Amino acid sequence: MAKDFTTREENYSQWYNDLVIKADLADNSAVRGCMVIKPYGYAIWEKIQRVLDDMFKETGHQNAYFPLFIPKSFFSKEASHVEGFAKECAVVTHYRLKKSPDGKGVIVDPDAKLEEELIVRPTSETIIWDTYRTWIQSYRDLPILVNQWANVVRWEMRTRLFLRTTEFLWQEGHTAHATEAEAIEETEKMIGVYAEFAENWMAMPVLKGVKSPNERFAGAVETYCIEGLMQDGKALQAGTSHFLGQNFAKAFDVQFLSKENKLDYVWATSWGVSTRLMGALIMTHSDDHGLVLPPKLAPIQVVIIPIYKNDEQLALITETVNDIVKKLKALGISVKYDDRNTQKPGWKFNEYEFKGVPVRLAIGPRDLENGTVEVARRDTLEKAVYQITDIEHKISHLLESIQTNLYQKAFDFREENTNKADSWDEFVALLDGKGGFISAHWDGTPETEQLIKDETKATIRLIPIDGVLEDGKCIRTGNPSKQRVIFARSY
Amino acid sequence: MAKDFTTREENYSQWYNDLVIKADLADNSAVRGCMVIKPYGYAIWEKIQRVLDDMFKETGHQNAYFPLFIPKSFFSKEASHVEGFAKECAVVTHYRLKKSPDGKGVIVDPDAKLEEELIVRPTSETIIWDTYRTWIQSYRDLPILVNQWANVVRWEMRTRLFLRTTEFLWQEGHTAHATEAEAIEETEKMIGVYAEFAENWMAMPVLKGVKSPNERFAGAVETYCIEGLMQDGKALQAGTSHFLGQNFAKAFDVQFLSKENKLDYVWATSWGVSTRLMGALIMTHSDDHGLVLPPKLAPIQVVIIPIYKNDEQLALITETVNDIVKKLKALGISVKYDDRNTQKPGWKFNEYEFKGVPVRLAIGPRDLENGTVEVARRDTLEKAVYQITDIEHKISHLLESIQTNLYQKAFDFREENTNKADSWDEFVALLDGKGGFISAHWDGTPETEQLIKDETKATIRLIPIDGVLEDGKCIRTGNPSKQRVIFARSY
Repeated sequence: MAKDFTTREENYSQWYNDLVIKADLADNSAVRGCMVIKPYGYAIWEKIQRVLDDMFKETGHQNAYFPLFIPKSFFSKEASHVEGFAKECAVVTHYRLKKSPDGKGVIVDPDAKLEEELIVRPTSETIIWDTYRTWIQSYRDLPILVNQWANVVRWEMRTRLFLRTTEFLWQEGHTAHATEAEAIEETEKMIGVYAEFAENWMAMPVLKGVKSPNERFAGAVETYCIEGLMQDGKALQAGTSHFLGQNFAKAFDVQFLSKENKLDYVWATSWGVSTRLMGALIMTHSDDHGLVLPPKLAPIQVVIIPIYKNDEQLALITETVNDIVKKLKALGISVKYDDRNTQKPGWKFNEYEFKGVPVRLAIGPRDLENGTVEVARRDTLEKAVYQITDIEHKISHLLESIQTNLYQKAFDFREENTNKADSWDEFVALLDGKGGFISAHWDGTPETEQLIKDETKATIRLIPIDGVLEDGKCIRTGNPSKQRVIFARSY
Repeated sequence: MAKDFTTREENYSQWYNDLVIKADLADNSAVRGCMVIKPYGYAIWEKIQRVLDDMFKETGHQNAYFPLFIPKSFFSKEASHVEGFAKECAVVTHYRLKKSPDGKGVIVDPDAKLEEELIVRPTSETIIWDTYRTWIQSYRDLPILVNQWANVVRWEMRTRLFLRTTEFLWQEGHTAHATEAEAIEETEKMIGVYAEFAENWMAMPVLKGVKSPNERFAGAVETYCIEGLMQDGKALQAGTSHFLGQNFAKAFDVQFLSKENKLDYVWATSWGVSTRLMGALIMTHSDDHGLVLPPKLAPIQVVIIPIYKNDEQLALITETVNDIVKKLKALGISVKYDDRNTQKPGWKFNEYEFKGVPVRLAIGPRDLENGTVEVARRDTLEKAVYQITDIEHKISHLLESIQTNLYQKAFDFREENTNKADSWDEFVALLDGKGGFISAHWDGTPETEQLIKDETKATIRLIPIDGVLEDGKCIRTGNPSKQRVIFARSY
């Protein structure tokens, strides 16, 4: 399985691509920049969806569905939104094909041209706020707390499986509120939900903060984000939550009658995470032996492999395994018994190691005699022999411990790779050395941020929300600064 | 709530449209033919999805995801497939917008024209079989049992919410097999899954059969279907399962090495149901008072409404209700306690009746004294007074009984509206009278089927699979026939 598998040291980027493809997570398709998400990869995404969807519903949201297509004119209505998205849109111009006159294949029927072109949604603020206008009359209709799971398209020039694809899957929450304070509270609540999901489920520590104006969502007043740190020292934005102010309400004329009987524009938020999380998950934990998955998101948490020489032995092992499977399932643990006779145990060991199954059990005739089972954990690659008695609780405990260990390991890595820089030399040396998060002073101007980006490819990942105020000097310009911000090169 | 609500008698079509919109199920959007599925409608679709997804997984299928876009040339590869779908496709020709030279809005950038146009998928056989070529080498790679939940686009001229929309949501299963027999078995298994879902969950009786060649899926060797009968006497195709033979394997050159070491083309099936099921669900059960939902698919199964004059009374009622809610939830029953003080009980009664909530409980001070609750069932509109003791089991039983009753009612309706016709006059009289399913002889030719369709708008809905063989004469041509088929006008 791990044959021809590049190590992280050799070529991190190649390692990632190989891993995604060889672990059967996703593949490139015949359509430029669009991926096929394979069953094993999709099973992880389904787990992510299920958990997030439950969290959204617990916080009062409902799902709905809005059209894939957006009339071109809608994009011009919010000035900065069109700036941000117009450059990268798939445009539908016709609605029919016809037979080619030469009899070979089909051509676009020139008579079937649309009066107004349709854009395949890159994000749905415009079509949703056009709809909300008909849903909202008075404060009684508010808040609207709606989410949608959908595919979106952004015409990216350079694509990478999961991290940046032309089409990707995501959820986008779009809420409408009677007051500014309530909308800001919602924006902060949802970035909190994302942070909780990243840390407790993905075992990925994240920093929480707000974006600088340069990095803000096109159309937002404030963008909150969570940022993780990958093993190559680059940051990855894993989720964003936008306070949109009254921008979209004004662009689409959505007003409501307040309790005080005054007409006012509605306040908005939007927030989303995407299949990009798959990339973050893979890069946070995996190693040179393949994928490593946190137990809480692993489609298969435990695999059991029989070691036998004949059918008689297999029958005896299967009897014991069936009992173990039943007990594990009763605790809600997903388990696979791989008794295929088409593959040898060694092949299976490699296969499940490469695919990141958190725990592997192996049972042979000697184990049956001793009432034991060999237990291998994927995160540390350690093996141990367990007594079968009460095995389900031991495994359950082991899974929890793997989850905790993965988080701790990623947390320690981030701490080791978060440094302060107090001079330009220090800053550049860190960036060109181990990378990571760099906490440094910035003079607060978009111009300086752009300058730093042009010179180093590093951007401000976030401004810590509860950051300590401290007087300092901008690392680039020396101008005064009140607070450190977090810089990094990023995905 | 039911104000301005057309009855079925007055105008069945208007009744359906009003119902969908006024019950907050869906709405038209700014994009021609595309709908917005509102939270209440989407909650029903989510229930449908969850149940079907579990059924697919129980029968060994996994989910995956394939690209939204399909290169134009793929459509020409399977001859009859392009015939069936080329006429109704959204075509992406460009990938960028730019500012209009006159400064007003945006225009399509003529420099960003695609070399090969992309089609927004109307169905995914072509892109999936192009992918399967890389997944399949030997019989060891088979079967592939994959499903995807996705949006698809077919450029329909006349659209109706849920029943026929330009964009709709669906699932499409695409399986690959080593033998013809196995593929046929899969095709039949999945139409069986659909029938079971329709009858046991939607409470909608369906006929099962195969399509005549005229009605077959473009590219299929055989199309199996389930057909329901709506209250206006028109049939509705609710799900299809296609045996595709080796057509797509040949078109996309997907061969495998068999156990006998021979190279052969792979056998295929595909099967799907869509948001059209929502239309079927609505039309099967609803009445002139609004939506009627089978309990198994109702987002809210029980609503509880307090009847009170002051806060003190409300507090006492709420205490009792909280206990009932807890007990109902413990049995897995979804329950909503509507104690809003912004609306009167009468308004709430109408609201939940119109939205099809299967059971309504009302509790006032008198009930508290007597230890009773008023129970109203939506299907029959009957009311009764129950003792609160053991209320959760009584309600659970009532929900089951409503589910059964809805099925029985729909079943009786279908039986009453299924008739034999043995002459052309009889056939036409039935069609122009009460409609329904008509069991009649047909000479087996596509020409006669087309003639009947042109003259009456009726089509062959299906050829019963296990139909009794009987000698007869075609109702239209008088030519000999061996078996009756089912005709109807349809959605």
